[in-house]
Amino acid sequence: MKKLLLLSVLFWSMTSFIQQEKPKRIIFFGDSITQAGVQPNGYITKLQEMIDKKGDKANYELIGAGIGGNKVYDLYLRLEDDVLSKKPDLVVIYVGVNDVWHKATSGTGTDPDKFIRFYQALINKIQASGAKLILCTPATIGEKTDFSNQQDGDMNQYSNFIRNLATKNNLPLCDLRKEFLGHNLNNNPENKDKGILTTDRVHLNELGNQFVADKLFPLITK
Amino acid sequence: MKKLLLLSVLFWSMTSFIQQEKPKRIIFFGDSITQAGVQPNGYITKLQEMIDKKGDKANYELIGAGIGGNKVYDLYLRLEDDVLSKKPDLVVIYVGVNDVWHKATSGTGTDPDKFIRFYQALINKIQASGAKLILCTPATIGEKTDFSNQQDGDMNQYSNFIRNLATKNNLPLCDLRKEFLGHNLNNNPENKDKGILTTDRVHLNELGNQFVADKLFPLITK
Amino acid sequence: MKKLLLLSVLFWSMTSFIQQEKPKRIIFFGDSITQAGVQPNGYITKLQEMIDKKGDKANYELIGAGIGGNKVYDLYLRLEDDVLSKKPDLVVIYVGVNDVWHKATSGTGTDPDKFIRFYQALINKIQASGAKLILCTPATIGEKTDFSNQQDGDMNQYSNFIRNLATKNNLPLCDLRKEFLGHNLNNNPENKDKGILTTDRVHLNELGNQFVADKLFPLITK
Amino acid sequence: MKKLLLLSVLFWSMTSFIQQEKPKRIIFFGDSITQAGVQPNGYITKLQEMIDKKGDKANYELIGAGIGGNKVYDLYLRLEDDVLSKKPDLVVIYVGVNDVWHKATSGTGTDPDKFIRFYQALINKIQASGAKLILCTPATIGEKTDFSNQQDGDMNQYSNFIRNLATKNNLPLCDLRKEFLGHNLNNNPENKDKGILTTDRVHLNELGNQFVADKLFPLITK
Repeated sequence: MKKLLLLSVLFWSMTSFIQQEKPKRIIFFGDSITQAGVQPNGYITKLQEMIDKKGDKANYELIGAGIGGNKVYDLYLRLEDDVLSKKPDLVVIYVGVNDVWHKATSGTGTDPDKFIRFYQALINKIQASGAKLILCTPATIGEKTDFSNQQDGDMNQYSNFIRNLATKNNLPLCDLRKEFLGHNLNNNPENKDKGILTTDRVHLNELGNQFVADKLFPLITK
Repeated sequence: MKKLLLLSVLFWSMTSFIQQEKPKRIIFFGDSITQAGVQPNGYITKLQEMIDKKGDKANYELIGAGIGGNKVYDLYLRLEDDVLSKKPDLVVIYVGVNDVWHKATSGTGTDPDKFIRFYQALINKIQASGAKLILCTPATIGEKTDFSNQQDGDMNQYSNFIRNLATKNNLPLCDLRKEFLGHNLNNNPENKDKGILTTDRVHLNELGNQFVADKLFPLITK
Repeated sequence: MKKLLLLSVLFWSMTSFIQQEKPKRIIFFGDSITQAGVQPNGYITKLQEMIDKKGDKANYELIGAGIGGNKVYDLYLRLEDDVLSKKPDLVVIYVGVNDVWHKATSGTGTDPDKFIRFYQALINKIQASGAKLILCTPATIGEKTDFSNQQDGDMNQYSNFIRNLATKNNLPLCDLRKEFLGHNLNNNPENKDKGILTTDRVHLNELGNQFVADKLFPLITK
Repeated sequence: MKKLLLLSVLFWSMTSFIQQEKPKRIIFFGDSITQAGVQPNGYITKLQEMIDKKGDKANYELIGAGIGGNKVYDLYLRLEDDVLSKKPDLVVIYVGVNDVWHKATSGTGTDPDKFIRFYQALINKIQASGAKLILCTPATIGEKTDFSNQQDGDMNQYSNFIRNLATKNNLPLCDLRKEFLGHNLNNNPENKDKGILTTDRVHLNELGNQFVADKLFPLITK
């Protein structure tokens, strides 16, 4: 009996030890905003720094998988190669800006029904792999707070799609669009279309990267 | 001297009499919404009925000058023929839906800076003719109230342009976009995109036509 | 030794017999044009009739897998469910019209580089399944023969992409765009934009369906 | 009587002399291509040099009236200020690229029917002023010669509109689109999309400016 107990303790110690060794692998899956996220002031870099500061360095492995110009179906095309093959524990999907924006800039945005269908397909395949998921709404194409940025209607529509997908699939949501608007209502009194959290209406400045990191931190570390 | 006074009084009476004879000519200048405005349940027909009911029939002449698909520059092209040549006392400009909508449906919307430039040119020419002006914001492309109709951002932007033009030129504004939203916030609890004041997200149903008539009535009769 | 020979012959006879029993399964994978292809006068129905007339009914199984509005990435999304799971011997890909057309009609066409990438991914997955492939160029958005249909430049560009993919992957090509133009140069002297092989510039009339069937017949039966 | 004759002759000589003094005023009315036309290597500068070389400097006054981004209706808006008020003898209209191109780049191109209507309105007003006219087709958005530049179909369509307007109004046509294609068929064997007569598919390099000057020279000096 004692022998058995000893063995159990030993086994528990070993698995515990092994588990401590294997960090939680998190892949950030998205577009140019996420591609820039691994740069010195990017949101993924900042998340890593926040984790390090907490002394949790050994427990997390953050991987950026963002490619400029990507829309939801581009994520689907490279899901196997860039995400599933790396066996992540958690995947953060942050997409939607180009699906809306490219309608106006090159006539190559994404139809509403297809956005939902491809997004759900991403969720299905990632869940089937055993990985957990966090969904993000796309933050902004223009920071004006009176809903007069050209794409505001469509951005709200596609954000609603993502909110509904989170609810339907019972997944945690990082509602960046809502958070950005909330921030700008307090910090953009001149109703400027850029320069608060973005450099160019879309891409994050340092404050914007910190803002996204702050919103994601509790979700990825819980 | 007495003779002169008598003549003056006589003349004044006559002109006064003549002026009573000449009704106030109002031209409604716009797109398909205004083209439908002269139909049996259209907003211009309803305005005429409201005037008649008030016993003011002899004092107003309402003319519809709406053509389907028109954008601000189309109004400019036909301003002389369809408006100025008819020597109106008042011109109601109601345009903007197609300037925004056609961006998405055929790639032929109107650039923001050019919308403003052509609109100001309309104002200048109409004012130079001596006619008075009322500006309207475009009401709606989709009646959802959470700003998630695809064109909401752009509609708000172009409505802001018109509001600014009204302020800058010191002109009365019929802010239909604001009024429609206010109505729908109270009467569209299911957040439907049509069927409250429109048949198809854009064109007015009978209630919508009455609504527009109600908003314009005090402005054109004061 | 004789026993072995006998067995071999027997085995060969059996497999031969089995092979005769199993018809060649062909899936037509595409958009609304292919969706209509299984209708009474559709090109797939006509192919079936041509096969039946030749007395080859038992040797071919034709399956339509067309869905209206599909673009190349929509085919990719449903490749597993609608094509590979059915274990076809041959897949005919006929896509491209919506990838070009939707740029103008809803701002949701397909970027050139992504069209090529998704198309190559389709080829890779279908080839990995062991099925053979035939590629088709998209025929027409407008039948005018002087290259003045709005989308002619883009249609030619995307057809070039498909021609290059056929060459690069050493695959048979059914160059419908080239064939349609050739036909119209001889049969559309008034330079009409529809009514020769299409009903509406895009979708096939009965002659158009027969024309496509005639072009595909030798490729699928050889 | 003799005195009168003498005076008449004198007067005739003077007016004749004055008329010789008054150069033919030519306004080039267009978009960014014409705006660049007055630059050191621009096509208007080159035309001036060709005229000077011929010793005709005193007989021609060339004026550039091009503004970047202009479409046909922008020309109409500034026709009075930038053209008619300067009382030209001849107006060269060179427009159409942005009417087509902006469909894809910002959703703000020009509808076909409206392109024709505004163009005809330009012709009417310029002819009413007594000035003569030369129409140009828009040369190119992409120099590939197999009609696979994205906008080729639309460019051909809008060029056809201008050709028809020239015929209908009995006006001289400088068919730059046709001339550019002819040149490229001989000088662009690699089917490149820029670098032959343009720097960027649209705007003229020095050779392109000389090419346009060469085509316009006989038309403006005859």
